[in-house]
Amino acid sequence: PCRGKSSLASDAEGPRGLERIYPRHDCFADRHIGPRDHDKQAMLQFLGVKSMDELIEKTVPADIRLNRDMTVAEPVPESEVLDRLRHIARKNKVWRSYIGMGYYGTVTPTTILRNIFENPGWTTQYTPYQPEVAQGRLESLLNYQTLVTDLTAMDIANASLLDEATAAAEAMALCYRQNKRRRFYVDSYCHPQTIGLIQTRAEAIGIDITVSDIVNMDFSDRNFCGMILQYPNMEGQVYNMELLQGVIADAHDNGTLVVFATDLLALTLMKPPGELEADIALGSSQRLGVPLGYGGPHAAFFAVRDELKRLMPGRMVGVSRDSAGRDSYRLALQTREQHIRRDKATSNICTAQALLANMAAMYAVYHGPEGLKHIATRVHHGTLLLAEGLKRAGHHVQHDLYFDTLKVACGTGPTDVLERAAQKEINLRVYDDGMLGVSLDETVEEHDLDDLLWVFGSESSAALLADKMDSSPQGSIMNTPFRRTSRYLQHKVFNSHQSETRLVRYMKQLENKDVSLVHSMIPLGSCTMKLNSTTQMMPCSWPEFSSLHPFVPEDQAVGYREMLRELEEDLCEITGYDSISFQPNSGAQGEYAGLRAIMAYLASKGEGHRSVCLIPTSAHGTNPASAQMAGMKVQPVEVSRDGRVSKEHLYKMAEKHKEHLACMMITYPSTNGVFEDDVREICDLVHSYGGQVYVDGANMNAQVGLCRPGDYGGDVSHLNLHKTFCIPHGGGGPGMGPIGVKAHLSPFLPSHPVVEVNSATPFGVVSAAQFGSASILPISWAYIKLMGGSGLRHASEVSILNANYMSRRLEGHYKTLYKGTNGFCAHEFILDTRVFKKTTGVEVADIAKRMQDYGFHAPTMSWPVSGTLMVEPTESEDREELDRFCDALIQIRQEIREIEEGRMDRQNNPLKMAPHTLAAVTQSEWNRPYSREQAAFPLPFVQPDTKFWPSSGRTDDIYGDQNLVCTCPPMDQYAPCFSEDGQAQSAV
Amino acid sequence: PCRGKSSLASDAEGPRGLERIYPRHDCFADRHIGPRDHDKQAMLQFLGVKSMDELIEKTVPADIRLNRDMTVAEPVPESEVLDRLRHIARKNKVWRSYIGMGYYGTVTPTTILRNIFENPGWTTQYTPYQPEVAQGRLESLLNYQTLVTDLTAMDIANASLLDEATAAAEAMALCYRQNKRRRFYVDSYCHPQTIGLIQTRAEAIGIDITVSDIVNMDFSDRNFCGMILQYPNMEGQVYNMELLQGVIADAHDNGTLVVFATDLLALTLMKPPGELEADIALGSSQRLGVPLGYGGPHAAFFAVRDELKRLMPGRMVGVSRDSAGRDSYRLALQTREQHIRRDKATSNICTAQALLANMAAMYAVYHGPEGLKHIATRVHHGTLLLAEGLKRAGHHVQHDLYFDTLKVACGTGPTDVLERAAQKEINLRVYDDGMLGVSLDETVEEHDLDDLLWVFGSESSAALLADKMDSSPQGSIMNTPFRRTSRYLQHKVFNSHQSETRLVRYMKQLENKDVSLVHSMIPLGSCTMKLNSTTQMMPCSWPEFSSLHPFVPEDQAVGYREMLRELEEDLCEITGYDSISFQPNSGAQGEYAGLRAIMAYLASKGEGHRSVCLIPTSAHGTNPASAQMAGMKVQPVEVSRDGRVSKEHLYKMAEKHKEHLACMMITYPSTNGVFEDDVREICDLVHSYGGQVYVDGANMNAQVGLCRPGDYGGDVSHLNLHKTFCIPHGGGGPGMGPIGVKAHLSPFLPSHPVVEVNSATPFGVVSAAQFGSASILPISWAYIKLMGGSGLRHASEVSILNANYMSRRLEGHYKTLYKGTNGFCAHEFILDTRVFKKTTGVEVADIAKRMQDYGFHAPTMSWPVSGTLMVEPTESEDREELDRFCDALIQIRQEIREIEEGRMDRQNNPLKMAPHTLAAVTQSEWNRPYSREQAAFPLPFVQPDTKFWPSSGRTDDIYGDQNLVCTCPPMDQYAPCFSEDGQAQSAV
Repeated sequence: PCRGKSSLASDAEGPRGLERIYPRHDCFADRHIGPRDHDKQAMLQFLGVKSMDELIEKTVPADIRLNRDMTVAEPVPESEVLDRLRHIARKNKVWRSYIGMGYYGTVTPTTILRNIFENPGWTTQYTPYQPEVAQGRLESLLNYQTLVTDLTAMDIANASLLDEATAAAEAMALCYRQNKRRRFYVDSYCHPQTIGLIQTRAEAIGIDITVSDIVNMDFSDRNFCGMILQYPNMEGQVYNMELLQGVIADAHDNGTLVVFATDLLALTLMKPPGELEADIALGSSQRLGVPLGYGGPHAAFFAVRDELKRLMPGRMVGVSRDSAGRDSYRLALQTREQHIRRDKATSNICTAQALLANMAAMYAVYHGPEGLKHIATRVHHGTLLLAEGLKRAGHHVQHDLYFDTLKVACGTGPTDVLERAAQKEINLRVYDDGMLGVSLDETVEEHDLDDLLWVFGSESSAALLADKMDSSPQGSIMNTPFRRTSRYLQHKVFNSHQSETRLVRYMKQLENKDVSLVHSMIPLGSCTMKLNSTTQMMPCSWPEFSSLHPFVPEDQAVGYREMLRELEEDLCEITGYDSISFQPNSGAQGEYAGLRAIMAYLASKGEGHRSVCLIPTSAHGTNPASAQMAGMKVQPVEVSRDGRVSKEHLYKMAEKHKEHLACMMITYPSTNGVFEDDVREICDLVHSYGGQVYVDGANMNAQVGLCRPGDYGGDVSHLNLHKTFCIPHGGGGPGMGPIGVKAHLSPFLPSHPVVEVNSATPFGVVSAAQFGSASILPISWAYIKLMGGSGLRHASEVSILNANYMSRRLEGHYKTLYKGTNGFCAHEFILDTRVFKKTTGVEVADIAKRMQDYGFHAPTMSWPVSGTLMVEPTESEDREELDRFCDALIQIRQEIREIEEGRMDRQNNPLKMAPHTLAAVTQSEWNRPYSREQAAFPLPFVQPDTKFWPSSGRTDDIYGDQNLVCTCPPMDQYAPCFSEDGQAQSAV
Repeated sequence: PCRGKSSLASDAEGPRGLERIYPRHDCFADRHIGPRDHDKQAMLQFLGVKSMDELIEKTVPADIRLNRDMTVAEPVPESEVLDRLRHIARKNKVWRSYIGMGYYGTVTPTTILRNIFENPGWTTQYTPYQPEVAQGRLESLLNYQTLVTDLTAMDIANASLLDEATAAAEAMALCYRQNKRRRFYVDSYCHPQTIGLIQTRAEAIGIDITVSDIVNMDFSDRNFCGMILQYPNMEGQVYNMELLQGVIADAHDNGTLVVFATDLLALTLMKPPGELEADIALGSSQRLGVPLGYGGPHAAFFAVRDELKRLMPGRMVGVSRDSAGRDSYRLALQTREQHIRRDKATSNICTAQALLANMAAMYAVYHGPEGLKHIATRVHHGTLLLAEGLKRAGHHVQHDLYFDTLKVACGTGPTDVLERAAQKEINLRVYDDGMLGVSLDETVEEHDLDDLLWVFGSESSAALLADKMDSSPQGSIMNTPFRRTSRYLQHKVFNSHQSETRLVRYMKQLENKDVSLVHSMIPLGSCTMKLNSTTQMMPCSWPEFSSLHPFVPEDQAVGYREMLRELEEDLCEITGYDSISFQPNSGAQGEYAGLRAIMAYLASKGEGHRSVCLIPTSAHGTNPASAQMAGMKVQPVEVSRDGRVSKEHLYKMAEKHKEHLACMMITYPSTNGVFEDDVREICDLVHSYGGQVYVDGANMNAQVGLCRPGDYGGDVSHLNLHKTFCIPHGGGGPGMGPIGVKAHLSPFLPSHPVVEVNSATPFGVVSAAQFGSASILPISWAYIKLMGGSGLRHASEVSILNANYMSRRLEGHYKTLYKGTNGFCAHEFILDTRVFKKTTGVEVADIAKRMQDYGFHAPTMSWPVSGTLMVEPTESEDREELDRFCDALIQIRQEIREIEEGRMDRQNNPLKMAPHTLAAVTQSEWNRPYSREQAAFPLPFVQPDTKFWPSSGRTDDIYGDQNLVCTCPPMDQYAPCFSEDGQAQSAV
């Protein structure tokens, strides 16, 4: 029976008779939650408790339990949720938008839409930290990096960042890291959201921003770490070449780094940043086939000169070799990523937008260099054609050289034009000075051009104008020094998948190399890899959500606003907070935003001097990084041997910093997988010292319906919607990290320089778009509606039940490191595998790789405790899958015992040699002390016809970092293009 | 450059200037067609011709070539086609339909919609004739058969038929085959389309149909081969048990077979046909999660008592064992299928609706027995509740016992009720006598019930009515002898995938066992396995196409009618015919319908005595079967040694039958893969003898834009839209076989007993729904619009180029059996592999199975010439793929040479042992005279990380047929439930 009543009842009580004889049969919670009722009973019994209630009572401290039902609406069946959301979506108006400003219409090839964006085989993977079972999307991300390096003509690119504006702020921080100068120039013709975000970030870390026309930039005092310009700029203008080169040379002469915010499509025609001596190039790859989505998610790109590569934020895919000496892709320079996330951080960005980067990369694979150039030429020509028509109609086009964007001074003022635009359902950009902006894109057809001409009062048509134009029209970039002469994307992958048949097979081939939730459980502690249901995903493809420009007038986004309002209401009830900001588009962004809100609040009370942030040593690395970036000073708080925050040390540190205590960041249940008893006490203590409490929402999945951060002392939390609220991980992004705050912090939530957001005294801007990655929010909205209050609570209960069941099943084989007072863990638990290293040399990585041979993705490795595994099964995995996973771990323990007891060699054993590829076990030669069957089919459930195979042997991290290759092979074979110490490498 | 101009031009000429500077970049033909321009050039050169035109001139006879452009509109880009189709779709009105009559609302679980129906991994496979690379959907179809046998309580079921009405006609034919009696009773309360179709079929084969109330059926003269009744009947009534049992006993006593047309959902509650001693049970599985789709495609089911299994039409999946002795699924009793298709046939149905059967099966897997029963109970209770409300409102409910359907005599006449229904956008069934019908289904929610009550003028609400009803309400089937007491679906597969996570993994696991077009080319001669593009597929999921009941008033289907009109117009221009009937929902149905139209035409001219049908001996087996079923006498025409129709013999036969010649059936280009020079001459000859010409459209893919059947002499053709016009094969259905006819045959096209179809003097009915499988027709509509006239022609050209390229590349290795006058084949060619049997014992099946080791699905085997392979690459495969396929065949030739030259054993060699499974090459034991690498990776392009593996060793056909098992294992293991000769089998 479904938990919770049908929402159909018009009255709150519900029609009892009807429920009895006409009960709903479509209970989503039963589909979302893995174990069946009889399994749950058996599992509870196995744990020695009589009921779910008893389990929860023994797990969640009594003084924080929510002893009432949430006032979240009761569950709504799937078809009804879709109907309702369709109704809401229709309130959005999908006009043609020529607003530009970093967001452009694009045609997502339908085969990419269906086979990547709508395919759980591509959306439900985790970040590719286990490269042997992630070669597919690592290859695709390498394509993305190649696309970026080629088009920008830079040396090396990362695998994407969150959005263009944060990428620009990261560039600023990189400049500062490079030369430690505390001033930074921003071209006043950068996009407003870029300027706003740079200013926000700079303020907290003490960098002085000067927004200036580039002609006025003066680097001579050698105080500027860097400068950023938009290319083409925010008004569409391409600067005069002499001016541009002069500024760049001047900057370089004075030790200032030069950053280009640019446009990949334009760069297919225009001289790329690398050839203009840029040090950093960044931008958005949205217009390469990624829907507008009312602002996101999209993938930003980021590329640098070779010298800066170790300072580059973000993940980077590199080519290494595997244990058999074959090429193998992996995340490169991961230690660098860790460095960035320490408390000296000026970046907490390790988040990528893998799914969207993959879409953009595949768009480039599909179109190839010729196709991209064709699209760009067409967009450019359309713009030239429109400009010609506008001039003839008596308007003044502001700039001489442009790619796709015109700024227009209307002959008779903008009013008539705007009226006609509205009549045609066309959005133009409206400048404060009354001028209008038009940005064209690949979706613009002849009739669109004709409509635009009509809107601007032209009597001509596109066809008539074209008849009088040259094939290389006047004003074309191609007739200027900006014309691109260098080639790009000559690699085979960009030149052989132009038929749909080929592309489909390529996408499928890559998909099938990657473990995802469609294969087996991915029990990553603290990552909550659970069901991302189709019903939740479907609305993301609806044009009413996916085709809105983020800067359309509010009355065109009424549906979005309604959906956001409802989601905010539900999330407030779930967390106990009073309001939500949807702007942060990752968990780390959320942390940062929350801490900035705290700082702003304190400053408003005249306590701007409070800047110390207490953080337990067991915290996630992003916590100190965020605190650092928010301008706080981090004070670690010790964790006692049982994994809990040491109250004595906390008290001592609070006393020590009592004048300057700003806040404490805690994770609950703790990163050690335990509901600590004294969380309320800790919060009270911090409050009593005048500090605020930041509760990290990463573990919200154990709390929903059971306890609320806002009740037990939290002032602010971020919510990883891509964990608890079912947005799929996308193989490493998108994520979403909105923050909930208590009322006193509400006035300080982020604002936006373009779109009005309800915030009285905002601290600034954290994402390029006002609502972050708005187009994936329907997923979380739908999840909450589908589950209802009762289902949500039950999901938390089962997530705790599943974790405890596994922990108990593994007893006697592995030790669960931390447990609560009554001997139960929360929704995840840490397995101590450190002992084996001493006895057998087996390290945690060996166990993780060996899991692949059993068809599983490893749990979180060496976090939060080095040398351990952290398992989070989530509520969506059923008992059979939990049992298989436990069986695998138990069998691995047995394999370790074989080594312990000397029956198996310490080096040549299934663990050290793991994972075993199909190539390895099918080759004639086999001279190992264990059989092929032991290698590949170690338990009966691992069967040849269904087994998931790692497609690479163990990847050599050291070799990869020493021989850094981060683009596709230029010809037939890889050659290292970078070397660690500047010396040539002989090994290939 | 795109072939053909943008359709955007408002004038026919198009704006030349605009095309020059603003050319479209999205040319679908370039995406659909595999080889790039430079490849085409190289391939033409390889063939020794200068241009595509020269190739076509040398291939297609001059006297039939279409020497002009087709007047099909120029290509429209993908996004624009979707916009246009969306515009058309919106003209359909999606009302709530409670019409019933064999079609019911249903909720397709979104995860099944997305992961099966919208997933090319499930839609693009071929029929599972190669079981080793089709274990996934064979397992799913076995689930379907289990579902059917369990719910009907019959002994054995097939893997689906086209629709309920044709299944009923097949049942009649089966009865006749069983006891050769020429009379058949039809319950007058069968669905009208069922009655119409039975009558149509019966007429041609000389069976006398008596439509009668079952109380009046009299079997005592022992002339009736069978009788069919609808259970529950067309008005919703469940007959009195005594009456029913009496009729059945009476029938059986007199040697008459009893057929139940029934409803799977109802059977979860009601005593199943098998327990009522039925001999045959059939019906539609549509309401198990398959969208209404304005009539189709849906899967019919068909089940029989054990004694009748060898007479059963349709494909049947059985469990056998593979070469390693492991269970393996396969199509069982295939020889039986061939038998049915001979010229003694009373059935030409070998077509299944695999994709839809898979959806229904997966729906049952998802809901399980409890879920299905819950749904059925709810539907039943809703009906009882409605009946109660109606009675209270003063209406008369006609029957006492019903499942989901009420027939209502309205208290004050139907006018008010129908007006209110229209106001609420509700469709009811309207009987001729003014009474109204309401059929409920699982989509009916409380507010729907309330609306229905309001429509019928009830002042009560569902909730109020329910309050006064028992949990087992009065009138419930559960309180009658019809209550089902036997259990069903106790197998593990129906009881373990109720969470979405589990179901997704199960569907993915099955998908990954099957070769489909997402892996590699499937070059099946005469089957045209080409790109089924996403853009074409997307509209099938739109509610405006998928949610329409077939019998809605015409003004609710305006969009469908417009789409059909345009498709008809285009298909007429492509074929040279004057009108099209979309009713036949398979190629075989099309043949049958075309021949019946010919017969009706001849009869109308007073030439009803003409009944001889000339068919070349090389024809597809469905040709004689269709002729036989249409009531014709088949006269074979000899084929000469060069594969062409023997003109002398044709002339002789025409002379011989000149008084009675009805028609000739030919395939063009011929089934031997050649454009015969004298097709026009042959057609003229037949015409001169007063006969009509039926041109089989199976090979239309070689003709589009090059020549037209209607021009060179065809009077009628069917068009396999699932071949030439891009409807995917769905792993064995759906197909679509509309027929095109010359004007003189138009008046005789099929009609429909429920929906008015434009036909003056129709011969009868061929499908349950008026437009066959209407909801997949947008695929073909979109294909034609996307390609435009120029693109379509070019596709034909490249299909011919590709075939000739392969044939030439294989020269010296394999002989191409037949070629045209100038040495070129058509779009397919036959490779002669018969020689190897003598020299080495290698048979064509060995080569076919060995292809699997190279990652390929075998070409068509032993058809039309036994012992050969027939290769049809289609235009969508690119040169690299063609080369890989040729390389594989050449390497296999090399492997054969090893045997020829004694270096390899005649039995223990890679061919005889093929296919090699992963299980085989990974096991420790390997004692074959060739290596594991030779077995599994015989060429460099077959790589461990991308290879597609057969999941079963070679399947043992004989064992499977001797130990027939056609349902899921009841417990842990299979036991044969049938034996060939009635003896117990010891082997399991």
